[in-house]
Amino acid sequence: MSETGEFEFIRNKLAPLSADEPGALGLTDDAALLTPQPGQEIVLCSDMLVSGTHFLESDALDVVARRSFLSNLSDLAAMGANPIGYLSSVCWPLNTTEEQRDQFVSGLAAAQTKYGLTLLGGDTTSGEGPLVVSMTFVGEVQSGSALKRAGANPGDDIWVTGSIGDAALGLAIARGDLDQQPYLLSRYQNPTPRIEAGICLRKLASACIDISDGLVADAGHIASTSQVQLNIEAAMIPLSAPALLWLEKEGDVGLRKLLTAGDDYELLFTAPHDKASEILSLKSECGVDISWIGSVSEGQDVTVRDEEGEVMKFDSPGFTHF
Amino acid sequence: MSETGEFEFIRNKLAPLSADEPGALGLTDDAALLTPQPGQEIVLCSDMLVSGTHFLESDALDVVARRSFLSNLSDLAAMGANPIGYLSSVCWPLNTTEEQRDQFVSGLAAAQTKYGLTLLGGDTTSGEGPLVVSMTFVGEVQSGSALKRAGANPGDDIWVTGSIGDAALGLAIARGDLDQQPYLLSRYQNPTPRIEAGICLRKLASACIDISDGLVADAGHIASTSQVQLNIEAAMIPLSAPALLWLEKEGDVGLRKLLTAGDDYELLFTAPHDKASEILSLKSECGVDISWIGSVSEGQDVTVRDEEGEVMKFDSPGFTHF
Repeated sequence: MSETGEFEFIRNKLAPLSADEPGALGLTDDAALLTPQPGQEIVLCSDMLVSGTHFLESDALDVVARRSFLSNLSDLAAMGANPIGYLSSVCWPLNTTEEQRDQFVSGLAAAQTKYGLTLLGGDTTSGEGPLVVSMTFVGEVQSGSALKRAGANPGDDIWVTGSIGDAALGLAIARGDLDQQPYLLSRYQNPTPRIEAGICLRKLASACIDISDGLVADAGHIASTSQVQLNIEAAMIPLSAPALLWLEKEGDVGLRKLLTAGDDYELLFTAPHDKASEILSLKSECGVDISWIGSVSEGQDVTVRDEEGEVMKFDSPGFTHF
Repeated sequence: MSETGEFEFIRNKLAPLSADEPGALGLTDDAALLTPQPGQEIVLCSDMLVSGTHFLESDALDVVARRSFLSNLSDLAAMGANPIGYLSSVCWPLNTTEEQRDQFVSGLAAAQTKYGLTLLGGDTTSGEGPLVVSMTFVGEVQSGSALKRAGANPGDDIWVTGSIGDAALGLAIARGDLDQQPYLLSRYQNPTPRIEAGICLRKLASACIDISDGLVADAGHIASTSQVQLNIEAAMIPLSAPALLWLEKEGDVGLRKLLTAGDDYELLFTAPHDKASEILSLKSECGVDISWIGSVSEGQDVTVRDEEGEVMKFDSPGFTHF
């Protein structure tokens, strides 16, 4: 894309996505302006997604835009933040067509409409390489109430929203390695950041993270930041019906895969035991299942025990996106 | 870099850059927290730099880090903002060495120390392509006082800080196309965002932009956003002594090059004529030369007149980085 084309693209395609926020200045300026509400802290996060690493080269660009958008939004959810807006920077491969760019914009437009957000800025460039999408999301949270990875205490319960491992199976479907199954595919292509649950958990959870690297790996992040031991019971980990069907054929190796696969964007959190009934009541309030999966003790690690009480071994706790 | 290596890199190399800001949470969390000062607006900008497009593949990685940092900071300067901190996301080529990553971090460390800023977050990944650096900078400005591209009025003067075209000559030196000249090379490798000048101009300028695409192109951005005509006198455009020396050999074609070359990161601004003496007095206050280069009239374009009063023609007003 020529640089002149860049300006036209911003004016004609991206600027309409900024129309609802005067502080975006129609994307004509060097920066955006935001007026924080009194008593609120600003929450900022950035995720960078690269074709071939974080998404498939064959993924349609509306899927890429949406997954970039939703994975960032999930980081805000993990902090219990109310999202405000976002900046989107894209490095287009040199052979990107106008149709592909339009598809990307339509993915952004659908996602921001669904979550009531506005594009605030960003950058558009091109290079000799794969598509790179870097977004920065802005949210706000009442001062002092943000959820963090640090804060889990021995005796706390461990909870998780939704179901685990679906996105990994959806990815396998997108790659052609598994038979079509619409629910699982949509869990990869159109994950649901748990914004409402995060907001409700501000007064209940002691520590929180979103599951992007894999359940075991992200539990490890809470363990190391909170300096505690997370003891997870594999039998209690919520799995969707299609994932259970798949698991029947795959057995123990399959379960290990689901517990170390990323991109579910569910919330994994800890909370004092006396908050259990309040947490269970959030199911109806936030429209998401919340499952007890274990408890916190002194220590500095993560253990997952199978139904026989044996500690499960993992080659890697997660991390690898594909 | 393996994803395990990613976490070590963040913990060992990047987290120390966040030590001065508790809201960065030691880079262990999903997002950073910032407490805005009462009465301030938050200013946000993102720039993405790609190897081979925005910098040379041969540029050392501390130069790349610094130029990414400074080009973003220049966007805050153009809004008259006080910088607060930044997020840095990097997609490393697969063959990046540990030494190169360390060099990048040392470039960031030096730049943030110089400007008193703190790393707040970001992302680290890798991919099969050139180095991509995407930074988001956060600043603040007293509510309602931010400089914008819109606001220039007929009768206003046009001003520019520093000198124009040096970075283009520095880039030519870095590419080996021109003989070594330390001042010009440093103007490409180590530009000076005009933060102080931007802050001082909040009460004086009617419109402002930083020169990243080229003087003529960026004047065009003010013209189109403010819906005015910018009439620039080429003879008044400030050039450094080394640039003048180069120009003696290159003549008119050379001048066109300097006026359409990017990356100077000077401020181009307009101001009511009755502010002229106050603006000239900023030279000492902000430690930067400020030069009158023309005036605003009704219209919607940019003209640059040579010493004979003839309108200069440009194949392209700028835009192309290399």
